[in-house]
Amino acid sequence: MYRILVLNGPNLNMLGTRQPEIYGRDTLDDIDALCRQTAEKFGACADCFQSNSEGALIDRIQQARGSYDAIVINPAAYSHTSVAIMDALLACDLPVVEVHLSNIHRRDEFRHFSYVSKAATGVICGLGKKGYVLAVEAAVSLVKGE
Amino acid sequence: MYRILVLNGPNLNMLGTRQPEIYGRDTLDDIDALCRQTAEKFGACADCFQSNSEGALIDRIQQARGSYDAIVINPAAYSHTSVAIMDALLACDLPVVEVHLSNIHRRDEFRHFSYVSKAATGVICGLGKKGYVLAVEAAVSLVKGE
Amino acid sequence: MYRILVLNGPNLNMLGTRQPEIYGRDTLDDIDALCRQTAEKFGACADCFQSNSEGALIDRIQQARGSYDAIVINPAAYSHTSVAIMDALLACDLPVVEVHLSNIHRRDEFRHFSYVSKAATGVICGLGKKGYVLAVEAAVSLVKGE
Amino acid sequence: MYRILVLNGPNLNMLGTRQPEIYGRDTLDDIDALCRQTAEKFGACADCFQSNSEGALIDRIQQARGSYDAIVINPAAYSHTSVAIMDALLACDLPVVEVHLSNIHRRDEFRHFSYVSKAATGVICGLGKKGYVLAVEAAVSLVKGE
Amino acid sequence: MYRILVLNGPNLNMLGTRQPEIYGRDTLDDIDALCRQTAEKFGACADCFQSNSEGALIDRIQQARGSYDAIVINPAAYSHTSVAIMDALLACDLPVVEVHLSNIHRRDEFRHFSYVSKAATGVICGLGKKGYVLAVEAAVSLVKGE
Amino acid sequence: MYRILVLNGPNLNMLGTRQPEIYGRDTLDDIDALCRQTAEKFGACADCFQSNSEGALIDRIQQARGSYDAIVINPAAYSHTSVAIMDALLACDLPVVEVHLSNIHRRDEFRHFSYVSKAATGVICGLGKKGYVLAVEAAVSLVKGE
Amino acid sequence: MYRILVLNGPNLNMLGTRQPEIYGRDTLDDIDALCRQTAEKFGACADCFQSNSEGALIDRIQQARGSYDAIVINPAAYSHTSVAIMDALLACDLPVVEVHLSNIHRRDEFRHFSYVSKAATGVICGLGKKGYVLAVEAAVSLVKGE
Amino acid sequence: MYRILVLNGPNLNMLGTRQPEIYGRDTLDDIDALCRQTAEKFGACADCFQSNSEGALIDRIQQARGSYDAIVINPAAYSHTSVAIMDALLACDLPVVEVHLSNIHRRDEFRHFSYVSKAATGVICGLGKKGYVLAVEAAVSLVKGE
Amino acid sequence: MYRILVLNGPNLNMLGTRQPEIYGRDTLDDIDALCRQTAEKFGACADCFQSNSEGALIDRIQQARGSYDAIVINPAAYSHTSVAIMDALLACDLPVVEVHLSNIHRRDEFRHFSYVSKAATGVICGLGKKGYVLAVEAAVSLVKGE
Amino acid sequence: MYRILVLNGPNLNMLGTRQPEIYGRDTLDDIDALCRQTAEKFGACADCFQSNSEGALIDRIQQARGSYDAIVINPAAYSHTSVAIMDALLACDLPVVEVHLSNIHRRDEFRHFSYVSKAATGVICGLGKKGYVLAVEAAVSLVKGE
Amino acid sequence: MYRILVLNGPNLNMLGTRQPEIYGRDTLDDIDALCRQTAEKFGACADCFQSNSEGALIDRIQQARGSYDAIVINPAAYSHTSVAIMDALLACDLPVVEVHLSNIHRRDEFRHFSYVSKAATGVICGLGKKGYVLAVEAAVSLVKGE
Amino acid sequence: MYRILVLNGPNLNMLGTRQPEIYGRDTLDDIDALCRQTAEKFGACADCFQSNSEGALIDRIQQARGSYDAIVINPAAYSHTSVAIMDALLACDLPVVEVHLSNIHRRDEFRHFSYVSKAATGVICGLGKKGYVLAVEAAVSLVKGE
Repeated sequence: MYRILVLNGPNLNMLGTRQPEIYGRDTLDDIDALCRQTAEKFGACADCFQSNSEGALIDRIQQARGSYDAIVINPAAYSHTSVAIMDALLACDLPVVEVHLSNIHRRDEFRHFSYVSKAATGVICGLGKKGYVLAVEAAVSLVKGE
Repeated sequence: MYRILVLNGPNLNMLGTRQPEIYGRDTLDDIDALCRQTAEKFGACADCFQSNSEGALIDRIQQARGSYDAIVINPAAYSHTSVAIMDALLACDLPVVEVHLSNIHRRDEFRHFSYVSKAATGVICGLGKKGYVLAVEAAVSLVKGE
Repeated sequence: MYRILVLNGPNLNMLGTRQPEIYGRDTLDDIDALCRQTAEKFGACADCFQSNSEGALIDRIQQARGSYDAIVINPAAYSHTSVAIMDALLACDLPVVEVHLSNIHRRDEFRHFSYVSKAATGVICGLGKKGYVLAVEAAVSLVKGE
Repeated sequence: MYRILVLNGPNLNMLGTRQPEIYGRDTLDDIDALCRQTAEKFGACADCFQSNSEGALIDRIQQARGSYDAIVINPAAYSHTSVAIMDALLACDLPVVEVHLSNIHRRDEFRHFSYVSKAATGVICGLGKKGYVLAVEAAVSLVKGE
Repeated sequence: MYRILVLNGPNLNMLGTRQPEIYGRDTLDDIDALCRQTAEKFGACADCFQSNSEGALIDRIQQARGSYDAIVINPAAYSHTSVAIMDALLACDLPVVEVHLSNIHRRDEFRHFSYVSKAATGVICGLGKKGYVLAVEAAVSLVKGE
Repeated sequence: MYRILVLNGPNLNMLGTRQPEIYGRDTLDDIDALCRQTAEKFGACADCFQSNSEGALIDRIQQARGSYDAIVINPAAYSHTSVAIMDALLACDLPVVEVHLSNIHRRDEFRHFSYVSKAATGVICGLGKKGYVLAVEAAVSLVKGE
Repeated sequence: MYRILVLNGPNLNMLGTRQPEIYGRDTLDDIDALCRQTAEKFGACADCFQSNSEGALIDRIQQARGSYDAIVINPAAYSHTSVAIMDALLACDLPVVEVHLSNIHRRDEFRHFSYVSKAATGVICGLGKKGYVLAVEAAVSLVKGE
Repeated sequence: MYRILVLNGPNLNMLGTRQPEIYGRDTLDDIDALCRQTAEKFGACADCFQSNSEGALIDRIQQARGSYDAIVINPAAYSHTSVAIMDALLACDLPVVEVHLSNIHRRDEFRHFSYVSKAATGVICGLGKKGYVLAVEAAVSLVKGE
Repeated sequence: MYRILVLNGPNLNMLGTRQPEIYGRDTLDDIDALCRQTAEKFGACADCFQSNSEGALIDRIQQARGSYDAIVINPAAYSHTSVAIMDALLACDLPVVEVHLSNIHRRDEFRHFSYVSKAATGVICGLGKKGYVLAVEAAVSLVKGE
Repeated sequence: MYRILVLNGPNLNMLGTRQPEIYGRDTLDDIDALCRQTAEKFGACADCFQSNSEGALIDRIQQARGSYDAIVINPAAYSHTSVAIMDALLACDLPVVEVHLSNIHRRDEFRHFSYVSKAATGVICGLGKKGYVLAVEAAVSLVKGE
Repeated sequence: MYRILVLNGPNLNMLGTRQPEIYGRDTLDDIDALCRQTAEKFGACADCFQSNSEGALIDRIQQARGSYDAIVINPAAYSHTSVAIMDALLACDLPVVEVHLSNIHRRDEFRHFSYVSKAATGVICGLGKKGYVLAVEAAVSLVKGE
Repeated sequence: MYRILVLNGPNLNMLGTRQPEIYGRDTLDDIDALCRQTAEKFGACADCFQSNSEGALIDRIQQARGSYDAIVINPAAYSHTSVAIMDALLACDLPVVEVHLSNIHRRDEFRHFSYVSKAATGVICGLGKKGYVLAVEAAVSLVKGE
């Protein structure tokens, strides 16, 4: 059974309450459940982890090696500033799908660039919670080598 | 029945022969078939069109209004240079999912920026032909207002 | 009798339906009619041509030499990206009045710059359909050497 | 009767003597007369004011509110450097037509950008004294809500 | 008794009428009164001066030396463009508190930078008329060497 | 009674020992006490928290919602690099006053820009510990809707 | 017998009439004849094609694969703006010699950069019609593996 | 007898009191006297004028035409920001020698660029009051056509 | 006996497993041992600490004051993004030797710049584990005032 | 008989040994011989000179005036940094053909720009030793005024 | 007797023959003679040296220490590219007057910047050979401490 | 016995006399002796060469191939401007250790970048003469393949 690690970065624990006109009304629990269901549907299982701490996210990425087959990550604000998360993803040597709820290319200039995209296999943005569903599907597909 | 227009930009008719290490070995016919199957699976139908001409792509986008419910577009090289395609997409007022076979953020600097992303609802890149499958799925989902 | 060629670039055939809060509710036919009336008022005649294709616009500009006395052109999105249209205008050696419906300096950063302005005699923007009236008037005035 | 305020910025009082190959041989008095005639032709009246002082131009713009229905302004060199004139125009809440004798986009790089364009309704450049005629016509048209 | 000079730059005489959604509904007279009251409250007196002229503001800053103990200045649009006001403040050798009604860092890009900040002891922005109260309080505090 | 959360970022726990020529000789305890006194003076109470960890600061900002009426924050070095703290402040939907001991506009180029300023209601810098007093006063004032 | 495809981009059909001080007095027919003669001289044959349309040039480049042994291309204005032509050349996998009549490095800044140069084997510029002669000679030489 | 106009820009009236480590201890009166003496020594006469107002300086430059044979100008802070003074100098069509007391290339980055240098015949900087002596000498030399 | 603190930043705990073609095959334990041996050889002792957390690294740097005589630090990815670590190092007022395993100037553009270098006494890069040996040697040498 | 001076810049004396995958396996002697043969073939003679010294190359260019009819130059690394060689070529007033063995537009960013191209009549790059043959042919052709 | 070293950089030995419309018709010998005469007039003596070699100019600057009291230097093209000459001048610790025949601020963009200006006491440009006269006069004046 | 070539660039022959606050009081002879001693200590020998001439340094680097096993180089000012020295180092195919006495990242902006770093195996800066000791040690270590 394929194992997918779903990582969420800073402030995503506030989902559903924070700027719903940009991020939607679903909570992170809703999204985590959706990811687990999607994983199951494709014969995999998903574990979900959120942190506001760059270091904690890196710790978790490092531990993924050997324990998981692929990573789905919404690095949120750290997308734009964290070389360290990018390096951790490059080092873990797993397929990585980056996901963003909003279309970052239609927002502030500084949100257009993502260090994480340089370490990701693929990127999905602007599709709301559906983006997570597709990201998990893509991650399983990458693991299967489809 | 939802109607999805799948548009492919310049040089994508060469798929399968051109730089397979970047773009894979599937031909555009393979991808078109995949898009149609995916659409059907989600209770929609997909029409596919490719052109090397910026003007022809704009013509087709303009005609989509009223005839289609959503657009999936891989603008290829025109992503980076065509304000006119972006304007056509903004004017057609349909959900738009932009897709790229490769992860454009890991390639040449000038491929990181896409005018089309400013007109797209969502963007999917780096997932090969699977990206088209997900894009069609996302397009149907957007039309259904999920 | 002076002959004025009025050229309209990509997506202007959608006028009246597309983003009316920016471009107004008049159709391109309305504007073409207005241009012809204005030309007549000043003792000239105007022919109008629109295309979404950069190449077709260049073809038309090249043919203008010898057939027309001046060009009024709204290059729309090609203003910002087409060195080729600029070169065609430079080569045709006629007075050129560039016109934009909206004030491009109050819109996206990438719309502030126009290659066509480097080949134009004069530029009019932000005055809606009235801008075409003034542009035709200016074109006739330039031909007359006023 | 509509009232139009025609403002001219620094060095325009030297018109006719200064670099005639760029600015033409007409004096500012000629242009002022032309503006008044044009205004009358369209059922309006025009007052003309020139100053080399940024502060004096701002004073005059502030006083325009309530006394005039529209402003035609050639800010000359202050176009490129005066945030304060831009702010005064934004505050006066009147239709503003910016005019330049020469085509600023074909001159020095630093003349391509105009702060005033960000506060103007429309911009006309490169059409010599005819540009003033068109600007007054446009201003009246804007006031009439055409 | 400490003497504070309160200087207001271009267009601030329009306060209360101009873009109240950005600058609030108080007039400059209200703010001047508030500054004088605040100064008195802290055992100081405040003189207020406004001008739309860069030169007049410089004249006043030069005269401050010897006549005042500190300057509170809202340079408005000249913040972003006036090296001359910055130089005058550097030369007068008094504590300077720069104040802006709005948070300039959330407005246009060109408003983020202030030459005056390079000559100011401290800067307060985004706090509306309260910002003036705090600026006067800070100025007195600086004079007292607190 | 209004509740103000005073947050201090990295290295501010070293205050009084670190580069006193820039930051003064007061310790963070002195400043915390000053903040609490100022809050009381204006009928409010202040809680103070310092951390060197970006994640811990974000955690605290998230918890502020519902528990506090306003935030005073000196993000120190994170001002210039943390999109995540900016996002947390935007999400908490409280009045925010950013404060810096030194005038960041007179220091290194990279200290001129603050992400936090884009989320703050107001910004105060360069006024040393007095800046905290004014920031707390401003925060209470914002809560009262003055 | 080696087959060389000679491609000419927008406005080159106007050669001999357009800005002869930059481009010389020879027509495109003269140059085409010269290319054919040069090819023959080196035991090859040359076919010549000109278009103002980016899409048509791409179509022709795609068809070259299998039909020609090398491409000589003067992309004219599209040199500076067309990622799509660059991609087509990269995909066709033939030796490519880019040629420009004028020395583009002595003209406008935006003409210094050529996307096509990133796909070309070699580049020749500034040598007028002689440049075509040398380009055909170079193309034959590349095919022969000299 | 040759007539030289010596113009001094903003804050130079404060010479001798302001930042003597940069500008020296001589007053503007000392420098004016020195200029007049130097002019006399070379058979010319010098008139000196200082203003903090950009507009007043432009007025004076405009009047110079016909009244003076050359201009020596220290535009001070306006060097870096005034397109209008540059334009006035270009229009007056006289030899212009720009002078700065300090070496502006060793000071703040924004002081390295001078619009006035684009209108000046020659520039002298970093030589203190001696720079004025040399500038007057150079101006006379230019007038004599040496 | 001199005390040296050796700090390692994010992902360096993965050494030996991560991208060995860039970072070599030694583990962090090997490097820590090497640092301790080198310190002893020069009559000093070294303590080693690694963290993926920016805050934890700052905490440790702050504690170094008084406990250690010098710091050797490989800030890894935080080199390029952490103003906070730079500030902590500036505040601790100890000799600092920055070390990188790879030559950061031959890698991605964004790795060329290091904030930490602005706080370091010296920098050593590109010499693999030998770089740590030299860094400890340099640190001891700096402490001894050699 | 026409005389051509062939100049080679720094490190080209190492040809054949240095990075043959970029520069090929021919030595500079081979290339010099090739140039002389080509010159003879076209009724001219060629002298060849190489130096690692910028000054020596300038000396030689200066002496070319009157002694040679044209210059072929591969300035190698000095292309990108030497304003002095560019000035020498501009001063010598001879036809200049710049040649590079590799296609500099496909290499490091800083190799794309060549000061020498601003002084050259024409530029040939990316064609290996054949480029020298064509450059000599072009030089003779320029001298003959073809 | 004061000793002045007059240094001239690359291509200045060609003066009088090279681009006389920019540099005038005087030869370097004329200018050297003028410098020596001027020096004598002010009770000093001048030695003149020209080289096309950056290294030779540095050698000469290094030898100046102890042998000369001031340096007058026209670094020509090396102004814009030579950090090494700048460093040599900074190290020699003598008054340095930089001189340029033409006004470098009215020429190519890359000629506006001079590294040498960062090491010079004063700079004179645009005054032709008269500039050397004034530079020698200034150098003597600096030595005398006037 | 391993042979190390120690190269010193422009102005380093002035060491001990020039700006000792930056470069220390040791002369180049002291440093050369130190390098030779260090080499001997590690079973190698070192030859030292200094030149102010870029060409002479390149000559020496070229000769190193076959004669030396590694290069230690302090390129001084040429670090920032010499593509030619970088190319020579790349061509010689030896281990290269770049060394700088001062920490170039804490000095002028233009000193932060070094072309030589792109050709060096490792870089050491900011450690004064000790840096040479470490560089020689590192060079020997690289040769031994440690």
